[in-house]
Amino acid sequence: MDENHALTDLVKNRKLILKGERIRTVYHIRAGEEAEAKARALDICYEQTVELPPSVIPVDSDVGRFIVGRIESLEAVKDQNGLYSVRISYAAESAGNELTQLINLLFGNISLKPGVRLMDVELPLSLIRQLPGPRYGIDGLRMMLGVHGRPLLCTALKPMGLSANDHAKLAYDFAMGGMDIIKDDHGVTSQSFAPFRERVKACSEAVAEANAKTGRRSIYMPSLTSPAHLLEEKAHYAKEVGAGGLLVTPGITGFDSMRMIAEKEDIALPLMAHPSFLGSFTTSPDSGIHHSLIYSLLPRLAGADAVVFPNTGGRFSFTPEEVKSIAHGARRDLFQIRRSFPVPAGGMTLDRVSEMLQFYGKDTVLLMGGGLYSAGPDLQDTTKRFLNAVGG
Amino acid sequence: MDENHALTDLVKNRKLILKGERIRTVYHIRAGEEAEAKARALDICYEQTVELPPSVIPVDSDVGRFIVGRIESLEAVKDQNGLYSVRISYAAESAGNELTQLINLLFGNISLKPGVRLMDVELPLSLIRQLPGPRYGIDGLRMMLGVHGRPLLCTALKPMGLSANDHAKLAYDFAMGGMDIIKDDHGVTSQSFAPFRERVKACSEAVAEANAKTGRRSIYMPSLTSPAHLLEEKAHYAKEVGAGGLLVTPGITGFDSMRMIAEKEDIALPLMAHPSFLGSFTTSPDSGIHHSLIYSLLPRLAGADAVVFPNTGGRFSFTPEEVKSIAHGARRDLFQIRRSFPVPAGGMTLDRVSEMLQFYGKDTVLLMGGGLYSAGPDLQDTTKRFLNAVGG
Repeated sequence: MDENHALTDLVKNRKLILKGERIRTVYHIRAGEEAEAKARALDICYEQTVELPPSVIPVDSDVGRFIVGRIESLEAVKDQNGLYSVRISYAAESAGNELTQLINLLFGNISLKPGVRLMDVELPLSLIRQLPGPRYGIDGLRMMLGVHGRPLLCTALKPMGLSANDHAKLAYDFAMGGMDIIKDDHGVTSQSFAPFRERVKACSEAVAEANAKTGRRSIYMPSLTSPAHLLEEKAHYAKEVGAGGLLVTPGITGFDSMRMIAEKEDIALPLMAHPSFLGSFTTSPDSGIHHSLIYSLLPRLAGADAVVFPNTGGRFSFTPEEVKSIAHGARRDLFQIRRSFPVPAGGMTLDRVSEMLQFYGKDTVLLMGGGLYSAGPDLQDTTKRFLNAVGG
Repeated sequence: MDENHALTDLVKNRKLILKGERIRTVYHIRAGEEAEAKARALDICYEQTVELPPSVIPVDSDVGRFIVGRIESLEAVKDQNGLYSVRISYAAESAGNELTQLINLLFGNISLKPGVRLMDVELPLSLIRQLPGPRYGIDGLRMMLGVHGRPLLCTALKPMGLSANDHAKLAYDFAMGGMDIIKDDHGVTSQSFAPFRERVKACSEAVAEANAKTGRRSIYMPSLTSPAHLLEEKAHYAKEVGAGGLLVTPGITGFDSMRMIAEKEDIALPLMAHPSFLGSFTTSPDSGIHHSLIYSLLPRLAGADAVVFPNTGGRFSFTPEEVKSIAHGARRDLFQIRRSFPVPAGGMTLDRVSEMLQFYGKDTVLLMGGGLYSAGPDLQDTTKRFLNAVGG
């Protein structure tokens, strides 16, 4: 260590008061051999924290000992040539009790370096307590909808281009047939064809009208993919006119925008997270973020009561193992954080319902869009068949 | 076409009044042969718009003709086996004049399918007019700083763990040495070590004090990676205490949050975009979004006066061709949208300055952090050498 650096005294004299809690992570590193893997692991430790070369951070300073990420272990991944698993921990304080900085700390700059994949995260309870988690979760949403002992059913209002009244007609038919959750297609936002306020009001009213006839409690979830300055206003409006939840796209509006909406006591609607624009985190097997984190654990921590993801065997290419891990991330024990519904979607048809029920279990939301529209001319009837298929 | 679908009548009867303007895109598709490439291109057209199988959208309906994406051309990429380039256009109205929905339309669901890469986008003027672009841009920032004829110099205050006063001391020395832009490290947000308000006030005052002595106009840019509900408040505070700009991370807080801050007349500070958490869009050569879009064009449209990206030959792995394309995206002609400064960063040292100046040209911000801290004990002196190296 050359002592003669501009930071030497500042860093050496800096005493930190820390609680000792650590954020524990697992990264996979692609490397030719162990020495290279170790060098890359060390690079993560510095890149994600002090963003300085080791030479300017004295190892015996508090910054060097506590702020720089710490390699807890490093080992070759079994049966995977050239792949290493490294456990790195960070001081809990480095995340500053903010979801934005937590994301930054876990994968901010390292996202720019190929061959590093974030596989797992374990947060100290103090940090988890700062995050809302689902307001309702699986049990709360079941209570709200009055549906027990079977998966929830969900569909999407589409296509883009229809009018607000067209959307409302579809919503009415779905609700009359017994659909539990009727959401906007995520790409139907506030286009001139069906402006947000007009559409949300019409669809909310249509579902309320159907509920009055059926005695059921179907809910309508409009798409809240909105400009940042309108998010809260639109969420309030949706609640005011009777929407029963909100569909959010954390990949587009930011995970913390969802967290903000989730925490607002005067909104307090169930949230469904949609994976739009998040796919690039999982298209490379060697880089990005593990499916269970990006599609379920992170949205769940940020307040999603249900998390949509591409089903296996549909029009996307997720493997059975990948989607199982997503469902696990949504439902696994996590201190006081409520469980989220996994919502497999994409390319689902009526004849796959029992297979999916078996695969995912009943604490699942089955989302079918195209498969219902294609199944016949009468949506009320098609929805009843969907409901029958799950024993509802 | 089976006429007997639930949507047939709604879609058939739906008449759309559209201006005829199209959003023009280029995607690269990985495919074994042309027929497969064509099928995948058609899949993009439906997935990104109506999200329904072709069988339920009559091709002679307005939705089928105008809303479903349109393949304008498809050809094999020269000298690239199994790679196809497809031009697809969308109705301008599908983006609903919102940056969030524009992002959704261009790459939302398709991000989830490997082997599709968004290469280029051409927006109609009507849509560009809805986006702020840089408030100052290259010319405005030069005017503000009083620096002409040479690249701007920038550095980052670090490491995480220092106190607010430590940060201010560093800021003071950099400003005394003649640094143009002194920014927070992007991971220094509001940790207990140096809380946002305390740090931003101390650093702003330190830079003002130095400016009063040097007669220069150095500016301090605090990191605005903040919880969604605090973004505006923090930006206002920064302005109030004398910060000269803001560092934003659109990958974490969302591109539209940056757009929102950029448009606020009562903030009106120059913005620098940082690429944290955006790397997964470019770690796979076959998937994701082209460097020039994700690191420069998109942030520029959303209001970034300067865009940070990993320099080639540093500690990241970007190629010379990739970083050239990023610089081009920042500075190329784009209707009335001002030009942004490209800000190559990462692993820069004093002895690379002339090489970088030659490579990027003078309308560039040279960002050096670790390289300056490592170059000697006296930051004022080191900064003067940095300044001399660019003829300032």
